[in-house]
Amino acid sequence: MTVTGEHRPIRSPVDDGGARRTAAGRVLAVLDAFGPAHRTLTLSEISRRAGLTLPTAHRLVRELLTWGALERDDAGRYSVGLRLLELSALAPRGLGLRDAAFPYLEDLHQTTLGNVHLGVRDGLEVVYIEAIRARVRKPVDSHVGDRWPMHATGTGLVLLAHADRELQEQVLSSPLTRFSPLTVVDPDELRRRLALVRKTGVAVARGQITVPDIVVAVPVLGRRGEVAAAISVVVEADDARPRELAAVLTEASRSISASLTA
Amino acid sequence: MTVTGEHRPIRSPVDDGGARRTAAGRVLAVLDAFGPAHRTLTLSEISRRAGLTLPTAHRLVRELLTWGALERDDAGRYSVGLRLLELSALAPRGLGLRDAAFPYLEDLHQTTLGNVHLGVRDGLEVVYIEAIRARVRKPVDSHVGDRWPMHATGTGLVLLAHADRELQEQVLSSPLTRFSPLTVVDPDELRRRLALVRKTGVAVARGQITVPDIVVAVPVLGRRGEVAAAISVVVEADDARPRELAAVLTEASRSISASLTA
Repeated sequence: MTVTGEHRPIRSPVDDGGARRTAAGRVLAVLDAFGPAHRTLTLSEISRRAGLTLPTAHRLVRELLTWGALERDDAGRYSVGLRLLELSALAPRGLGLRDAAFPYLEDLHQTTLGNVHLGVRDGLEVVYIEAIRARVRKPVDSHVGDRWPMHATGTGLVLLAHADRELQEQVLSSPLTRFSPLTVVDPDELRRRLALVRKTGVAVARGQITVPDIVVAVPVLGRRGEVAAAISVVVEADDARPRELAAVLTEASRSISASLTA
Repeated sequence: MTVTGEHRPIRSPVDDGGARRTAAGRVLAVLDAFGPAHRTLTLSEISRRAGLTLPTAHRLVRELLTWGALERDDAGRYSVGLRLLELSALAPRGLGLRDAAFPYLEDLHQTTLGNVHLGVRDGLEVVYIEAIRARVRKPVDSHVGDRWPMHATGTGLVLLAHADRELQEQVLSSPLTRFSPLTVVDPDELRRRLALVRKTGVAVARGQITVPDIVVAVPVLGRRGEVAAAISVVVEADDARPRELAAVLTEASRSISASLTA
């Protein structure tokens, strides 16, 4: 079951022919042309999706190719290159955090047999820094780098519950996507749930994205005691034991926080 | 023990004041300012490292910040942002390959208790797409996105052995870094070893980077039967059983290849 990708928020559309944008804006537009449904593109597809003339797209693609941000396959199609993976590994909230958390996430995965996620907030959304998919159950098809609305994910609810009031209201007043019949999209109900997350230290949600899943999530504290990330386990609802899951998650979270502050 | 970062090849130095470069080149220079030893930078550090005037650096940093390629912390220092992780997840040879391989790498890790690497060739080097560090032994400090010379790593030797003759000679005629007293840097000796890798299907090397490690590596075949990647296990040499490691690696490699072509 693929639930990722289709629902991902569309980035701001290109609003001119490329001429009104800055030079940096045109470079970034070439990169923005790529997405989960557009992993490999021809030059003319890049030109069209980026809203650039073919000569401009050609010139920028050539520079990005030389630098390693893009790769070209034998058929002449372009895709994202490894230099960006190398660069993204430098993000303090990215693969560094993932590295520190990984042993504990792997344990969680072995113990719970569920999908394990490590997410951080980026703007109004949550981005998965790690996603270990269950092998025995029908897995949710989550991947590193996936971006989700906060109201519908366990890690997102935790991060939203601990965000500034202003940011919470910004999220709650924006259009809230319904992914399943169970997705909570009522702002008042969400406010109540966020208060409960703050009170209990745990988010528990059922079928928010795929039914009959249940997700249990807890915060991970950073160096200064702030909520730096959230971890979650997704299992099938049938045999879920939310309280036990919360206990192993809290234990894992403490270990990750300790290794971050070490 | 940290062996990564210090030895990473220096990227081509900035050769002008920023004025002679293209607009795209200046954007990429800002990103190039970041590195394993430079994960967070002030604006003036970016300006200096990128070879750009302060106003130009300021303008580009602001655009990259808005786009999400950079983040700014409370102290006003900049680092690589999550948008680049999201983008790098689209690389066909990156996290996609890593996702397909992950369950088998996790098994390898559990079975061998060693450091497990998944590497692909990028230019004249190998880049780690996954690195699972051993928890029981003194781990080699490898990370996703790490870039290494091919002659000194297990995955690199496998990838080099199966590369074009021309590329092999390009690598063998370039300066070969000696990481440990055991690192093989003699081109003729390396040619013999590469022939052996091709003949046996396995690379075995001792202490090439850290003594007393031993690495065993095998190729992973892609859709068209080409060598698409390599996987390796690094263990301490004392109790290494290279033949057994080669057997479990070969088994894992077959499973990964099968899942890639499925």
